[in-house]
Amino acid sequence: MDRALLPADPFTDTEKAAVYKAIHTRRDVRGQFRPDPVPDDLLLRLLDAAHHAPSVGFQQPWDFVVVRDPTIKDQVHGLFARANAEAAEMFEGDRRETYKSLKLEGIREAPVNLAVTCDRSRAGPVVIGRTHQPMMDLYSSVCAVQNLWLAARAEGLGVGWVSIVDAEALKAVLGIPANIEIVAYLCLGWVSGFHARPELEAAGWRRRLALRDLIHHDGW
Amino acid sequence: MDRALLPADPFTDTEKAAVYKAIHTRRDVRGQFRPDPVPDDLLLRLLDAAHHAPSVGFQQPWDFVVVRDPTIKDQVHGLFARANAEAAEMFEGDRRETYKSLKLEGIREAPVNLAVTCDRSRAGPVVIGRTHQPMMDLYSSVCAVQNLWLAARAEGLGVGWVSIVDAEALKAVLGIPANIEIVAYLCLGWVSGFHARPELEAAGWRRRLALRDLIHHDGW
Repeated sequence: MDRALLPADPFTDTEKAAVYKAIHTRRDVRGQFRPDPVPDDLLLRLLDAAHHAPSVGFQQPWDFVVVRDPTIKDQVHGLFARANAEAAEMFEGDRRETYKSLKLEGIREAPVNLAVTCDRSRAGPVVIGRTHQPMMDLYSSVCAVQNLWLAARAEGLGVGWVSIVDAEALKAVLGIPANIEIVAYLCLGWVSGFHARPELEAAGWRRRLALRDLIHHDGW
Repeated sequence: MDRALLPADPFTDTEKAAVYKAIHTRRDVRGQFRPDPVPDDLLLRLLDAAHHAPSVGFQQPWDFVVVRDPTIKDQVHGLFARANAEAAEMFEGDRRETYKSLKLEGIREAPVNLAVTCDRSRAGPVVIGRTHQPMMDLYSSVCAVQNLWLAARAEGLGVGWVSIVDAEALKAVLGIPANIEIVAYLCLGWVSGFHARPELEAAGWRRRLALRDLIHHDGW
């Protein structure tokens, strides 16, 4: 058993700045993917970063389905197109027109697509920390996504999360078993640049909220 | 409208290493909290990191309830104790004894507790990207947690996620409105050290899975 404690020194100023740089310059990329291939060793570093996310009860509930086959991407894009048309109808007037003008995915352009899943039965029916909050395993897989996203930013790779798709239909396309949930479908690749601000902010869709309005002390 | 693209250069080797260092040395801290106060400006940097997480439709559904009042921490600890006793009964034999020996929270020792929430009605009933995957707003708040966790590690602060608690009872203690969900309850503070490996791994509860077994290509 390895119970050794490692020093808890803060990172150097340069290291701290790098972590904040990844956090603040990370973007949800839809439109700037370049076709250049993503090397296997680089992809493995990103998946290893995801694999080192926190997980409830050390469950590590995630799997990673790497998609490079253009025919599969085409099928996934078809699912997106169907869902996106349905989604557009849910908005009214000008808002609908703006919605339709937004590019919301880069499925076919991105050299790599990646499904991040959650095996809810992994580690048996009783999982430490999930006994009272059953969503914790799904949340673990989300933490894996965010680790990967930040590591990708540091590597100069863009990532976009595609959620406008029916999850069950997506499972069918990818052959994912019934007991496995898809938590995220990501597009990943080198990019021509990163937007200075989130695209929905730049498009005037919605403003960044003031942080101070979101902080409460010792109660709501 | 600011549509400028910033360069997508990879970070320098030192910067990349810092991001991976945060990812690989981050721990779920329960037992090493020191009582020293966490400065307000530092806490604000961490909350700002959380606030720059990706969010579905730029919804920014999170709020942050900062708890420093010891009487509130005591109440939350009472909720934990009750849930933890219930949880222990769900394990059998040796496993139950091991469970009982684990320290699973640092609610009273950590100088700061933090609830991260999700306002599911923020930005109205129709949110871009949530139309077909209703959990996306909750997942956005999880991304905020992971941003904060990594930033905290860079600052030399430990974070522990307490999920062994009834979420509705916790909402009552914190005065959180019915329409707001608690996604995470975190303990945060300076620590005497970080474990070299996850504690559940070191305790022999569960092994780290081999990454190669979790990767699939072009289908499950």
